[in-house]
Amino acid sequence: MIYKASELEDLINEAVKAISMDGSPSNLYNPIHYILSLGGKRLRPLLTLMSANLYKEDMSQVMPVALGVEIFHNFSLLHDDLMDRADRRRGKLTVHKKWNDNVAILSGDAMQIVAYQFIAKAPKDVLSNVLNLFSSTAIEVCEGQQYDMDFENRLDVTEAEYLEMVRLKTAVLIACSLKLGAIVVDAPEDDANLLYDFGIKMGLAYQIKDDLLDVYGNSHVFGKNIGGDILCNKKTFLLINALERANPAQKEQLVKWINAVDYDPEQKINVVKNIYDELNLKQISAKAIERYYLEGLDYLSKVQVSDERKKELITISETLTYREK
Amino acid sequence: MIYKASELEDLINEAVKAISMDGSPSNLYNPIHYILSLGGKRLRPLLTLMSANLYKEDMSQVMPVALGVEIFHNFSLLHDDLMDRADRRRGKLTVHKKWNDNVAILSGDAMQIVAYQFIAKAPKDVLSNVLNLFSSTAIEVCEGQQYDMDFENRLDVTEAEYLEMVRLKTAVLIACSLKLGAIVVDAPEDDANLLYDFGIKMGLAYQIKDDLLDVYGNSHVFGKNIGGDILCNKKTFLLINALERANPAQKEQLVKWINAVDYDPEQKINVVKNIYDELNLKQISAKAIERYYLEGLDYLSKVQVSDERKKELITISETLTYREK
Repeated sequence: MIYKASELEDLINEAVKAISMDGSPSNLYNPIHYILSLGGKRLRPLLTLMSANLYKEDMSQVMPVALGVEIFHNFSLLHDDLMDRADRRRGKLTVHKKWNDNVAILSGDAMQIVAYQFIAKAPKDVLSNVLNLFSSTAIEVCEGQQYDMDFENRLDVTEAEYLEMVRLKTAVLIACSLKLGAIVVDAPEDDANLLYDFGIKMGLAYQIKDDLLDVYGNSHVFGKNIGGDILCNKKTFLLINALERANPAQKEQLVKWINAVDYDPEQKINVVKNIYDELNLKQISAKAIERYYLEGLDYLSKVQVSDERKKELITISETLTYREK
Repeated sequence: MIYKASELEDLINEAVKAISMDGSPSNLYNPIHYILSLGGKRLRPLLTLMSANLYKEDMSQVMPVALGVEIFHNFSLLHDDLMDRADRRRGKLTVHKKWNDNVAILSGDAMQIVAYQFIAKAPKDVLSNVLNLFSSTAIEVCEGQQYDMDFENRLDVTEAEYLEMVRLKTAVLIACSLKLGAIVVDAPEDDANLLYDFGIKMGLAYQIKDDLLDVYGNSHVFGKNIGGDILCNKKTFLLINALERANPAQKEQLVKWINAVDYDPEQKINVVKNIYDELNLKQISAKAIERYYLEGLDYLSKVQVSDERKKELITISETLTYREK
């Protein structure tokens, strides 16, 4: 039996709700409960379950691993928000704003351990494989976040460097989610690797789409303020391409606005967006997103299970690629 | 063959040196290399090896687990120093002072993952046990640190609460180090548990001794400034006992100095130390340390290996109890 994505989402949301975080001291456990209850797409555990479901119906063995990935993802959001000094996450106060910096540091640390406690529930015969993939991925996510922070002080980030940063910060965890599902149900190694490659491409498309929506999304649909990345000079796919492709006059404008201290936010967004328009970056980004989407599907097509079983994965990949939020 | 502690220390120092942290980005990996190279007693990995050596000669299987514990311990120091805003560690700048807060957060996060990568090298037949003990201990260390921070704003911490905080923050990792050594070499479960209990008592004695040396140590021998805990109002065994045992006049003095903002550091240390003297806290602390030391030895005596093999563990426990630094 192949589950619908919505059925698996329900299973995940139930399982997340059942994670008990009522331990003592409350300043350690309440923030973990808080961030896990903020919701979100639950994309990564969903991919783990869907990947396992390519081969197997029983989700009980794979669920703890899927939850481990989701807990790790939320831990990384918690610490990233602290490092980025972000005030809000999913419309609610971030942990360091609701409590304080030290509570955010320590509850994040504890959360990473809780993630490992769930990962460690993998069946014993695959535990070592599961752990090794999870740990090497987790380290890569840290590498990606460090590159992202290193990029803040640079104006010469190349597209290749940007893509490597996104691969590390975002794509490998999506790829790992898929591969873990395959490993837990003992799928053929070639399939597991193809699912990983599919995930990398999906992750790249996902992040560039995120960058694109920040500028060209509909704020009512997107749920965030448009232009947020522009205001904080985030090195997005659009900004690094703009800096690479700009003529001298455009480049001078971009650098001036990047370095501006006192300015009207709306004006900054408009100027930068105009340059993006002149450089055709909306179309260029959309093309890159589609290319990665298609390259991902190509990997998925080589996985040795029937097309029928792959339908839900294709749909979710398509949905993410053409999403408006 | 039973190794001498100094031989095992040499093995550990070689193994720590061989840990390669030359990956990219350097802002992620250099701080990990830096803190691991600051040295320290290497007490925890030493206990893991000594515990394994009660049963087995070959240290190759247990070494990665011992290193995992040491890396985790150094991770916890790195993040604790950040949370405590400490400037120095072992005479050198702390990571957040040498780099910055974000580098300290993220390299600490990565370090915790690296610790798990070493722990995951445990033999497959004991991996699950090793992981579960390590994770539950790591969470407890976080709980201890949170209690310690929670205590900062309280004047009514009881001795029982203090001991529970120390058990979590310090003793469980020492106990875990010993038990892990036993688990990896497949020692009898009763022995593993007795070694754990021995470690808890050793850890309590170790921390109270630390509190005592901060006040009554010889600064030339101790290597830290005497009275540091008094100046930052740290809830030590001495301070919480002083607050519990003080008469109204002494209590008023203590509270006045705890709340003082502008003061002469030397005067504060002298006043508080005088109250400790009046309350006989040097002797009371020394007695508590000795009691835990002896209770620990009692557990060790029940471990089912020859007295001959236990000599080095008894010596290290004695050395820590009666140390002057």
